[in-house]
Amino acid sequence: MRTVEFPDRSDWPELLKRPALSSESLYDSVRSVLDDVRANGDEALYRYARLFDNVELEGFEVTGAMIAEAVGQVPQELRDAIGTAAANIRKFHEAQIPSLQKVETVPGVVCWQKAVPIQKVGLYIPGGSAPLFSTVLMLAIPAAVAGCPEIVLCTPPDRSTGRPNPATLYAAQVAGVSRIFMIGGSQAIAAMAYGTESVPKVSKIFGPGNSYVTAAKQIVSLRDVAIDMPAGPSEAEVIADDSADPSFVAADLLSQAEHGPDSQVLLLTTSARTIVKVREEVDRQAALLPRRDIAAKALDNSRLVLLKNMDEVIEMTNMYAPEHLIIQADDAEQLAGRVLNAGSVFIGEWSPESAGDYASGTNHTLPTSGYAMAYSGVNIDSFMRKITFQQLSREGLEALGATIETMAAGESLDAHKNAVTIRLERK
Amino acid sequence: MRTVEFPDRSDWPELLKRPALSSESLYDSVRSVLDDVRANGDEALYRYARLFDNVELEGFEVTGAMIAEAVGQVPQELRDAIGTAAANIRKFHEAQIPSLQKVETVPGVVCWQKAVPIQKVGLYIPGGSAPLFSTVLMLAIPAAVAGCPEIVLCTPPDRSTGRPNPATLYAAQVAGVSRIFMIGGSQAIAAMAYGTESVPKVSKIFGPGNSYVTAAKQIVSLRDVAIDMPAGPSEAEVIADDSADPSFVAADLLSQAEHGPDSQVLLLTTSARTIVKVREEVDRQAALLPRRDIAAKALDNSRLVLLKNMDEVIEMTNMYAPEHLIIQADDAEQLAGRVLNAGSVFIGEWSPESAGDYASGTNHTLPTSGYAMAYSGVNIDSFMRKITFQQLSREGLEALGATIETMAAGESLDAHKNAVTIRLERK
Repeated sequence: MRTVEFPDRSDWPELLKRPALSSESLYDSVRSVLDDVRANGDEALYRYARLFDNVELEGFEVTGAMIAEAVGQVPQELRDAIGTAAANIRKFHEAQIPSLQKVETVPGVVCWQKAVPIQKVGLYIPGGSAPLFSTVLMLAIPAAVAGCPEIVLCTPPDRSTGRPNPATLYAAQVAGVSRIFMIGGSQAIAAMAYGTESVPKVSKIFGPGNSYVTAAKQIVSLRDVAIDMPAGPSEAEVIADDSADPSFVAADLLSQAEHGPDSQVLLLTTSARTIVKVREEVDRQAALLPRRDIAAKALDNSRLVLLKNMDEVIEMTNMYAPEHLIIQADDAEQLAGRVLNAGSVFIGEWSPESAGDYASGTNHTLPTSGYAMAYSGVNIDSFMRKITFQQLSREGLEALGATIETMAAGESLDAHKNAVTIRLERK
Repeated sequence: MRTVEFPDRSDWPELLKRPALSSESLYDSVRSVLDDVRANGDEALYRYARLFDNVELEGFEVTGAMIAEAVGQVPQELRDAIGTAAANIRKFHEAQIPSLQKVETVPGVVCWQKAVPIQKVGLYIPGGSAPLFSTVLMLAIPAAVAGCPEIVLCTPPDRSTGRPNPATLYAAQVAGVSRIFMIGGSQAIAAMAYGTESVPKVSKIFGPGNSYVTAAKQIVSLRDVAIDMPAGPSEAEVIADDSADPSFVAADLLSQAEHGPDSQVLLLTTSARTIVKVREEVDRQAALLPRRDIAAKALDNSRLVLLKNMDEVIEMTNMYAPEHLIIQADDAEQLAGRVLNAGSVFIGEWSPESAGDYASGTNHTLPTSGYAMAYSGVNIDSFMRKITFQQLSREGLEALGATIETMAAGESLDAHKNAVTIRLERK
């Protein structure tokens, strides 16, 4: 963990720099998988299941019987927790359903927007030894709340069981996923982007994944299908003053660091004493973690920055645009009000990032790598389109007629002009 | 113009197929321009201005004096029209400003979203002999209504005047653009994506352009900057029954066809008589257009489709997902209510597409090429991010504590679990 004291503003960009992301070296091999699935459909998927997942499948779709069996394998305590989290996530996202009103911009010219769910969406959930089943809730619940009629989920089968993780399947059932397919990797992205005999083609793909999945999402997003947002390593910034509890700050930094060796961890503080105590606490708590080696790697790249005052802290925060921002300081609410660029903000010492990761109700699929400057986290809007409508009466078109004709003529678009003229000339 | 009668459903995908879009052959040359500008900044821009725009510039920024001069060159009638259109666009987009409320998902757990404008946005407006200055209004007004503090616009200088088109500059002033730069092409996209000595780096780029601009936007959107939406040739679908005025339908089809030889034009109707009369009217009206050669090429690829009933019409419409949809039929409103995939819908015979293109208030930057299945047209959301916030009290964290700990343990993320435990254990 690197401490930086009172850096010059000219050094801030370098200090805040994230490692360069590049999936491009994988593009060629991923492209060949995409092309293969596009051309050969299920047959290609069976080959990749053998090659990458080491399973011989007799069908990709997860049946009701398989789900029932999986449910029985999830401990009751975890089922209850998933149910509680789901209810909170549902409640928060239901409040986002837009109510759109008609606007009469000019008498006789009525315009409105209608939010219509994307008809077919695809979710990707990675496998592994401890799959992040919480992501199923974060993606599928807003899709269901938005009213998407078809919600497809792909997740790879576990090598030993030949089935996906039971908690993943349980979460999918709770959230309202329509269909589940035991497919992983870039081939799953291909299946959803292009459709195969078994897998429906979707219009938008959501979900995290390794660098192959990320590369596949990037490639298909250029022309074939929309995706949720660009991916990058997870990150958290903590703002602390001298009132912050160093053991809480340390716990939040470690909570981020355990995600992976490339996780980004940043502390901005106005208190030198806090830095010292946080370091001590991080060392103490890390030693107790099963994932301490991963955490240690992430912490090697972390920065503990001492700044002169909260104005500098806010300025640096907005320049960094963190995925997660945790504020443990006096006036945490007021500081939160000054945030311009962040994915999700956690206010006060009782608001650990874990709360939002799992159960507060907010979404944990958030923009990293500075993308918070341009992207929102996943929310209801991610699953809908706002289609515009306009209805003019004759009077409305008469009122606007000269304006439209003049502008069309100004752009040398005579047929645009004529579409108005021909109407107004009719008796 | 090709007439198709009662096609089999199995033939619908082929019938509705759009030409394949590909900018990829340009990627290499565009990438070298992007890399050049990224490395060499303004110096590269001066070189490209000489090479591509044939102008020797002494600075890229359009000054207040240049704008004042341009304003004087725009006829009063056009200035009035631009003012009227701007007011309607502003009114429609102001109504979209979200009001977001706090949600207490569980007592002591308060969550909310806050819509924050993207801090720096970049707009690209192509040049040419008759630039589409209306697009300036469609992009800059929502940006201003959203509250974006910095709105940058790039548009190339005209070869003969060495300045951008006066109507473009006037529209930019009316709309509230912050800064204007006389730069075009993929080098303008690069300047805004990376920043140069003169041009600020922005977080999101909007606007149409030729295939070089499109390729540049695609490349920079992978990692460097967000963009509005994928681009494609403009398109319109008209739904008509036997009550539709064939001269209006023809005028709307031609209005779309005159955009360019690759424009997509589609008529879906339940009336054979309407097809016959529309053909006659298209021929008659096209002969009078200055741009008839362009229109003729687009019409060569157009399709006039006779279907059995309005159920089929709606089904085909939703499969096609048109950019613009014009409904001239009895029950136009009810039909509009069944639309699931479209960019912008025009209801009834007094609602030509031109109204939305210029002045009704709706936005004309819309998804083409079937992207309407996943994308909205440009609206207020395009210029904002919804940042999530959560504030938990001790009681709130106590209520959620077991849920979070159980889920974190289930995902083998012990530090996530500990971030809760350490808080709840404090006296």
